[in-house]
Amino acid sequence: MTQEDDIFDKLRIELRRGSLVLAVLAALREERYGYTLRNLLDEAGLSIEEGALYPLLRRLETQGLLTSEWREEGRSKRFYRLSADGAAILARLQAEWAAIGASLDRLLTKD
Amino acid sequence: MTQEDDIFDKLRIELRRGSLVLAVLAALREERYGYTLRNLLDEAGLSIEEGALYPLLRRLETQGLLTSEWREEGRSKRFYRLSADGAAILARLQAEWAAIGASLDRLLTKD
Repeated sequence: MTQEDDIFDKLRIELRRGSLVLAVLAALREERYGYTLRNLLDEAGLSIEEGALYPLLRRLETQGLLTSEWREEGRSKRFYRLSADGAAILARLQAEWAAIGASLDRLLTKD
Repeated sequence: MTQEDDIFDKLRIELRRGSLVLAVLAALREERYGYTLRNLLDEAGLSIEEGALYPLLRRLETQGLLTSEWREEGRSKRFYRLSADGAAILARLQAEWAAIGASLDRLLTKD
């Protein structure tokens, strides 16, 4: 990895970090457990390590944006889904994402 | 501020943080000093505190993405501009931003 690749990688991770919350909230409009959630994010091109996903899920649940429930399906699994508060926050974050995008476009087309 | 506002604010800051580097690099395709850079970001809707901007500029310069120069214009000012490496990274981050946006769109239009 060249030094430029290394710097790019760090900035890329920073850029993705903030959008992961948005991705997780969007994915959990439908109930899912950890494994299927990770697969969906993976397919969408927003991979997340298990070691990062579970702390994030716990944090979002503590903030009241998700609910979770243990259920037996073969073996016991914890299912997550968006709460009403989570749905409200998701809508606001989507608007925020669009606003940031518009701001960046303004800067990038300027000269 | 309600608790929901408070949570939203934290997530909003996370979402903006990663995109600020992209905004600063885009803004410095043209040479600017700190004050005019902050004004431009402000106008674009991506405000940044002085206390956050200068450390970010130093970091980007250390990474070789910016160059800077002190010059007299009335009083002495430090001017910043994108380096060749910075321009390469900016192009890659723009592509990355678009890819993240496409991923989020896929997740958000699903169902």
